[in-house]
Amino acid sequence: MRLEKLISLMKDQGFDGALISPGTNLYYLTDLHLHEVGERLTVLVVNARGEYHFLAPSLYENVIRGFPVTFWRDGENPYEKLAWILAELQLPGGRLLIEDTMRADWLINILRLESFEFHPLSSLVKELRMRKDRREIKLMKHAATVADRVFEELLGWNISGIRERELALKIELAVRELSDGISFEPIVASGENAANPHHAPGDRRIRKGDLVILDYGARYKGYCSDITRTIAVGQPDERLVEIYNVVKEAQERAYRAVREGIKAKEVDRAARDTIAGAGYEKYFTHRTGHGLGLDVHEEPYIGPEGEVVLEEGMTFTIEPGIYVPGLGGVRIEDDVAVIDGKGKRLTRAERELIVL
Amino acid sequence: MRLEKLISLMKDQGFDGALISPGTNLYYLTDLHLHEVGERLTVLVVNARGEYHFLAPSLYENVIRGFPVTFWRDGENPYEKLAWILAELQLPGGRLLIEDTMRADWLINILRLESFEFHPLSSLVKELRMRKDRREIKLMKHAATVADRVFEELLGWNISGIRERELALKIELAVRELSDGISFEPIVASGENAANPHHAPGDRRIRKGDLVILDYGARYKGYCSDITRTIAVGQPDERLVEIYNVVKEAQERAYRAVREGIKAKEVDRAARDTIAGAGYEKYFTHRTGHGLGLDVHEEPYIGPEGEVVLEEGMTFTIEPGIYVPGLGGVRIEDDVAVIDGKGKRLTRAERELIVL
Repeated sequence: MRLEKLISLMKDQGFDGALISPGTNLYYLTDLHLHEVGERLTVLVVNARGEYHFLAPSLYENVIRGFPVTFWRDGENPYEKLAWILAELQLPGGRLLIEDTMRADWLINILRLESFEFHPLSSLVKELRMRKDRREIKLMKHAATVADRVFEELLGWNISGIRERELALKIELAVRELSDGISFEPIVASGENAANPHHAPGDRRIRKGDLVILDYGARYKGYCSDITRTIAVGQPDERLVEIYNVVKEAQERAYRAVREGIKAKEVDRAARDTIAGAGYEKYFTHRTGHGLGLDVHEEPYIGPEGEVVLEEGMTFTIEPGIYVPGLGGVRIEDDVAVIDGKGKRLTRAERELIVL
Repeated sequence: MRLEKLISLMKDQGFDGALISPGTNLYYLTDLHLHEVGERLTVLVVNARGEYHFLAPSLYENVIRGFPVTFWRDGENPYEKLAWILAELQLPGGRLLIEDTMRADWLINILRLESFEFHPLSSLVKELRMRKDRREIKLMKHAATVADRVFEELLGWNISGIRERELALKIELAVRELSDGISFEPIVASGENAANPHHAPGDRRIRKGDLVILDYGARYKGYCSDITRTIAVGQPDERLVEIYNVVKEAQERAYRAVREGIKAKEVDRAARDTIAGAGYEKYFTHRTGHGLGLDVHEEPYIGPEGEVVLEEGMTFTIEPGIYVPGLGGVRIEDDVAVIDGKGKRLTRAERELIVL
């Protein structure tokens, strides 16, 4: 179990304990998938001597197995039980790691128990999670292949005239058919809407001359894919075709820049320089990419401040874009893994401009 | 804006400020819908003198309008800007309300800024949110009507032989067609799976003789509905029919118990006594209901410890159930509002046992 690795890191770095609430870190460390926990206190308490104990609401009685565990029932005060577990594990204070996404009201109650110094758990776990092992890469490759297959499938759909939100739903259903579900709400941004990189699919109908940004992903056994392709419905404006080719070139150059030992920001620079060289620098308003794994956004981030040195097994997106207000936008995104010292695309769908 | 009401409560109860991150409380207080905020610090800072200021990542530049606001860009340290805002609003410490669902890593960073005493924001806002006004009841009625219509629709589907997860997807799509989306992942629990009140829809095929628990809801302009009906596919076991009638009676009695001025636990007791009278007490393993509004679970909770006194405009579910391991289960749930001093069902779908 990867929990042992965390404990060894905790010892090395002088942490006394960790309080791990449900989320992707808990899943990564224990293989326990506790979904929809809501407001009821659920934590795995770990100390640096390698002892651990779960506290969970009684509705998880059939889910949490193979761990020392204390259940609490509605009407009981779970923080009294937590205080008892902290005492049992000899954690009467000290340097404590806290799951980053834990609810603040839980942490406020924990603050009242003892005098701790808190640190985000991700600061340690990200070191483990950033480097994927072979099994993880395999699962990510599967999720990426689902994204590719859905792209091929959607090229056969009649897209002209339908609303962005209808297309987003069709994409979602196609992804769900082939995987454990979507990794995030699909983005469909058409025409002038494509100039907003965070556009939510709306009622606009896709029409001739549009470029349409499609950004979606699948989840498979916890692992995510995240692809973007930009397609044309009918022949687009010449300027959009020019922009498309700049983005494609930037994406390719960033991809080729990937190798073990360089910093993340060098990958970003390869994309940014290409776009700047074509005069579109001010229209590239986000990072070149982000780490990908159990979360859709995780380390390493591929941006101008990316100091992480790329290593074997790291997985991230490369997704430069150009967004011109009033005109439209283009983004092309692949999932990339560092394998045998070089970048390898996990998503492999067509990157040439497709005109439907 | 309801933010003024919060400020007035803060003054009365001696709070110096509030840090409100995105979620249903922020939406309730400001009408701002900030979705998918993720890991980037986003907070509304409020002081008890009625001054407020937003801190948000630059990607919300077109979303947050009508508020004093400071944006921060990737690469900047947002907590330095937060310290500046706290100083501007004269909050150099004191009693601070914190949005309950704020990420713990944000709170850990806030802990390092000043010496505050933290309290969960919901302790004040729940007082406001528990009593819905006319507009809110209207939106909830709309969401409830969607649930009713989907129930009528699904009675026309051919359910025998399909998998639980397929039926869950069909329900989800029907709800999405008529509303802003589902209020939670639909539950479909058939046969012996229905004995687990938290069953996730799986690959089991629905077959003759099954009772099937269907638990789902719609969201409309932020407000939720939540309905459960239990239907039979072919004539069920006599004992299941008996259980069905006990649950129906318990639900009806709890509903009739609702009136202004009584405690929530008295509604729970009406259901619990009915089930105990029939000898099934140990198979009723959860609360009778929960408050409903912008969240699917909120105050007032309708359980044995429910000390909240029911008031005009409160909205909650009434959903007793009986779950017999190895045999199956029954749950019947309606959304109820206190109107003119009495309970009024918002969901009105058929409650008699329907045999398909």
